[in-house]
Amino acid sequence: MRIALIRGDGVGPEVVEASLPVIEKLNRSYKLGLEFVDVEAGDGALRRRGDPLPQESLKEIEKADVVLKGPVGETAKDVIVRLRQMYDMYANVRPAFSIPGLASKFEGVDLVVVRENTEDLYKGVEQMVADDVAVALKIVSRKASERIVKFAADMARTRRRKVTCVHKANVMKVTDGLFASACRSLKGTDVQLEEMYVDAAAANLVRKPQAFDVIVTTNVYGDILSDEASQIAGSLGIAPSANLGERKSLFEPVHGAAFDIAGKGVANPTAFLLSVGMMLEHIGNLGNDHRFLKASISLREAILRVYSSGRKLTPDVGGSASLADMANEIAQFL
Amino acid sequence: MRIALIRGDGVGPEVVEASLPVIEKLNRSYKLGLEFVDVEAGDGALRRRGDPLPQESLKEIEKADVVLKGPVGETAKDVIVRLRQMYDMYANVRPAFSIPGLASKFEGVDLVVVRENTEDLYKGVEQMVADDVAVALKIVSRKASERIVKFAADMARTRRRKVTCVHKANVMKVTDGLFASACRSLKGTDVQLEEMYVDAAAANLVRKPQAFDVIVTTNVYGDILSDEASQIAGSLGIAPSANLGERKSLFEPVHGAAFDIAGKGVANPTAFLLSVGMMLEHIGNLGNDHRFLKASISLREAILRVYSSGRKLTPDVGGSASLADMANEIAQFL
Ligand SMILES: CC(C)[C@H](C(=O)O)[C@@H](O)C(=O)O
Ligand SMILES: CC(C)[C@H](C(=O)O)[C@@H](O)C(=O)O
Repeated sequence: MRIALIRGDGVGPEVVEASLPVIEKLNRSYKLGLEFVDVEAGDGALRRRGDPLPQESLKEIEKADVVLKGPVGETAKDVIVRLRQMYDMYANVRPAFSIPGLASKFEGVDLVVVRENTEDLYKGVEQMVADDVAVALKIVSRKASERIVKFAADMARTRRRKVTCVHKANVMKVTDGLFASACRSLKGTDVQLEEMYVDAAAANLVRKPQAFDVIVTTNVYGDILSDEASQIAGSLGIAPSANLGERKSLFEPVHGAAFDIAGKGVANPTAFLLSVGMMLEHIGNLGNDHRFLKASISLREAILRVYSSGRKLTPDVGGSASLADMANEIAQFL
Repeated sequence: MRIALIRGDGVGPEVVEASLPVIEKLNRSYKLGLEFVDVEAGDGALRRRGDPLPQESLKEIEKADVVLKGPVGETAKDVIVRLRQMYDMYANVRPAFSIPGLASKFEGVDLVVVRENTEDLYKGVEQMVADDVAVALKIVSRKASERIVKFAADMARTRRRKVTCVHKANVMKVTDGLFASACRSLKGTDVQLEEMYVDAAAANLVRKPQAFDVIVTTNVYGDILSDEASQIAGSLGIAPSANLGERKSLFEPVHGAAFDIAGKGVANPTAFLLSVGMMLEHIGNLGNDHRFLKASISLREAILRVYSSGRKLTPDVGGSASLADMANEIAQFL
């Protein structure tokens, strides 16, 4: 199993470095046969190679089975948005769940934002149309909408069977209207469909986050709501994500490069390691390979045990441990 | 002072009806000379007249000094988005502040979302470009961006002198980039400028809402973040707003028609009455007329006193009073 590893910028390299021993321990214990290939991408690659996503990196990514990525800095768009579109990784899966032991104003949150990952304003079609007027295209297709709605429904079937379709079809009647109509294909199926305007969804995530199971939405709304939901579940700093496609998938923390704390050894490895967990689960499901599923569960449980023990937590989650300490502690529990 | 009054749909008519005696009391006490002209608009107008914003209503609005509006239902876009654009009411001002006595997970919130109110995807330029592909235009002009940034800075000068400019210029480099560059004109002025990506802003509103003073942003992000911020301050159900333009301004609650509780007499009049307060303040500032400013302060204080007394509150804010009871109680405190 060949994994292209992008260490990224800011806290990325140190988080990846501290996490590798954890992954190696799983690799050995469960005989996963994971093989990591370092791939340069991001601000560092731009500085060193003149390209945030150099040709060589693309070649390695092409050869790899999956991609594991740390946060990238100012060049994020040229790396992650490009890879999502290049490989048509259409489903961006972002779970947000309360972690026992992690202080939070909200309890019992357990939802997943399923974000359409290939179109909307992220298509990147924009330009100045006059000296002082800029225009960007929000693009919504029936195919992409139906595909992501089906994905969300399948996910809901493994959970509480409820899908909240978030859009703003009262204003964007054609584009969001098309997305909403794709959602309505779920009416009368074994999945409960709820529709919600995006502004109401942003408020309801605060009012009663426990009421959500699977949220399915377009790219821009998904970007915003998934960050909000992670923070409500506890902290944006611990939220993992998967970018899933037919040919290739990529796993990454939701948080960014966090340049303000980079190099200090205090970053939280949770988001990255939970993303590794999602990667192992994905590989396990693809090949119907129980070793990967077991490794994924073991990793997730080890992380949760560190939180419930309340020891060796990094400062962002109320502790005073270093990144290395926390990663070690997680490894202990494997 | 001629005020075009749109009673709206759902809870609109009953909220307006219960609020009118409160306004009348102010009108008499402060000799404001307010004169209300009923104007039909919304779902009801569509049903009764075949048009959500009939020609006659437009005539009355044209003659009025300001517009006071209850929530409108499914035809909201054809009423409010149309009026905002028709009269170039470019600044949508949405304060979100903690109310002592109102139970909330967050305390000490005091921010204002200043939402650009005329362009972005709200321009309404969208269509199917193929059988199954829809496109909408996100339009951002330098003029509108500079105008709203200036407005936000002026508002910040009456507050804590901090402006958070929210955009997503790392992805939408041209459109949001143009908006961001307008924000940067505040660098080196007496107002502190902070830039934040919209996803980070959605998370930071949960993480530390007290850190925000004035948020300035484009139309769609403003729609989403203002609903989120209101709920964080306590409840979307109590958030007021102003749509300000050079020629005409409109005041309305942020919440919608709430059809689920319409006709039951349990809706909360706070959002509507706080919007009336914003209207009085606006009129007072325009004409430099202290009677209006005093009336506005008196109304706001009366509302706050009802919350701090904890009595006669509607069910949505933890009480068991009716809409009429709560409105009466507010009037008592005037
Ligand atoms: C960094 C940025 C391009 C990216 C996005 O907007 O998709 C990030 O915010 C995310 O959510 O993965
Ligand atoms: C009803 C809708 C058209 C409106 C908007 O999106 O602007 C509302 O949500 C608001 O925020 O005033």
